[in-house]
Amino acid sequence: MLTIAVDAMGGDFGLKTTLPACITFLNTYKDVHILLVGNQEYIKEKIEHEHKQSIHFLQENKIRIQHTEEFVAMDDALEIALRKKRKSSMRLAIECVKQNQADVCVSSGNTAALMALSHYVLKNIKGIDRPAIVTTLPNQKNTGTVVLDLGANADCTANHLLQFAHMASIMLQLTKKIDHLPSIGLLNIGEEMIKGNEVVKQAAKLLKDSNLNFYGNVEGNDIFKGTTDIVVCDGFAGNIALKAAEGVAKMISTSMKQSFNANLFTKLSALIAYPVLKKIRYAFDHRRYNGAILLGLNGLVVKSHGGADEMAFFHALEYAYTIAKQNTLTHIKKYFDAQYVI
Amino acid sequence: MLTIAVDAMGGDFGLKTTLPACITFLNTYKDVHILLVGNQEYIKEKIEHEHKQSIHFLQENKIRIQHTEEFVAMDDALEIALRKKRKSSMRLAIECVKQNQADVCVSSGNTAALMALSHYVLKNIKGIDRPAIVTTLPNQKNTGTVVLDLGANADCTANHLLQFAHMASIMLQLTKKIDHLPSIGLLNIGEEMIKGNEVVKQAAKLLKDSNLNFYGNVEGNDIFKGTTDIVVCDGFAGNIALKAAEGVAKMISTSMKQSFNANLFTKLSALIAYPVLKKIRYAFDHRRYNGAILLGLNGLVVKSHGGADEMAFFHALEYAYTIAKQNTLTHIKKYFDAQYVI
Repeated sequence: MLTIAVDAMGGDFGLKTTLPACITFLNTYKDVHILLVGNQEYIKEKIEHEHKQSIHFLQENKIRIQHTEEFVAMDDALEIALRKKRKSSMRLAIECVKQNQADVCVSSGNTAALMALSHYVLKNIKGIDRPAIVTTLPNQKNTGTVVLDLGANADCTANHLLQFAHMASIMLQLTKKIDHLPSIGLLNIGEEMIKGNEVVKQAAKLLKDSNLNFYGNVEGNDIFKGTTDIVVCDGFAGNIALKAAEGVAKMISTSMKQSFNANLFTKLSALIAYPVLKKIRYAFDHRRYNGAILLGLNGLVVKSHGGADEMAFFHALEYAYTIAKQNTLTHIKKYFDAQYVI
Repeated sequence: MLTIAVDAMGGDFGLKTTLPACITFLNTYKDVHILLVGNQEYIKEKIEHEHKQSIHFLQENKIRIQHTEEFVAMDDALEIALRKKRKSSMRLAIECVKQNQADVCVSSGNTAALMALSHYVLKNIKGIDRPAIVTTLPNQKNTGTVVLDLGANADCTANHLLQFAHMASIMLQLTKKIDHLPSIGLLNIGEEMIKGNEVVKQAAKLLKDSNLNFYGNVEGNDIFKGTTDIVVCDGFAGNIALKAAEGVAKMISTSMKQSFNANLFTKLSALIAYPVLKKIRYAFDHRRYNGAILLGLNGLVVKSHGGADEMAFFHALEYAYTIAKQNTLTHIKKYFDAQYVI
């Protein structure tokens, strides 16, 4: 039995999306408890009025509530989240992980606050200098590419990148149950061009000398080709790649919508092509890729998109579940502990 | 009358694509001469056999040929291009610009060689420390976003970024004939997160204090939203954004093709939706965005994609034509000269 602590009040929509997603999740996965951190009164009222048929989850203790009236607003300054709101739903959810009351926590709240609080409460794993934000992005091979860091560290050293690679490699071996060593690409710019900045050049050396399965340099498009299982980069490059990709996908989908809505004929053709268009939309639905892990801390924290709807939050819960289930953190700690002794 | 010098032998396909693209270009634009730099015998033979109806361009001197037997291969090391092949079609095409025999040159050849040779032959404009690779990317507003640097300089200082912004602002005022100062975004990572690396933070200050229309930080998706007219970044971030965008576009188009080719029903629906699909394909056809300028040198050089086909090379010629026509370089030089004096 796993327990997921949920910052029920986080994100743009708070309870409106977190609660129904949790209920769907409990209906789908039977070996999970959910610990909702938030306003007990609101949560109970919402379950009793809008999710009557799920009230048994409360009775069975599959849903437990940890009451608090504070929550971190999306636009709260870091100082507020860290110093003023000491009983925020976000912070208490993280503390549930710290105190082993939950195996993982999930929040759609303010990223900077989530990172800072997680770091403050959980601390880094011994041997890891910087935690990283990790997620899995879709690729042409349908295998998913694990990319890190996506924005936790704007500036990284070569050694940070090496640590990221080790964490991701361990994580992927567990979650994918693959028996080969996951291949690792180092995000860089065109081979033809000046081959990367100083940090990347040094990182390539470290990766080559490591016991990891280092493929070599990859470019931005390789993330979506699926050239390697993992792509490692600093948080600046990773965030830019992620956002650029989102931007293009959005531009294309908007243009498709407009084109198919242009006139009666195009609308009719959209109707006929509907099953295919639906499939394409599903394949690239960003909500299916919602959920990024803050990896490298003494506890698992999953960040969901602030604007996540019910379906998106469900996927973040699923991501948290998978990672927690594989005991990812224990394995990462074990690896870095061994390194530390040497 | 403009003259475009063309590295006729450059790129993956050499003459096979450069020549027909040049002929189509001359049929479309009447105020242009083309100076083909390459093997005279091959070029003449190809025109006489495959483009008989265009032989008048030779007779009218609309096409002139500068003969050379050397050319830079796509996989030639930089040293070969710089030191050994002193009469390569690429180098001679650049020298045509240097010697005012051409207003601009276009090559699909090896990027590193083109950059190094252009730099060596033309030298930087006084006041510009680093030339940048600039291109226009599509956006949701259909206005196009000018992005630089796309890979010439992996590491940049804040001052380099400021110079890029000035060059792009001057260029855009001329090419778009817009009367407002183009807005400039500084590529950075999520506002919520740690706000960028040190260089970006310094660059923001410089841009704020400049006479440019500085919008502020933008993220990777803003390039494709069209939030600002110009997006400035170092070559590392720019190249990664560009390639990530290409990768996603490619992944989506591949998946669309597969989905519409899955079975008889989907093929039929593709047939019905064909006019719409064609329009969408056209809107995001990367060939239409082929062509990037090496900006900041004493002469205009346009880099075409190595794998450019006829249509793509045509667009690179068109880009070169537009930039040369506006006297972009003279205006940039004038601006930086004035700065220099002060």
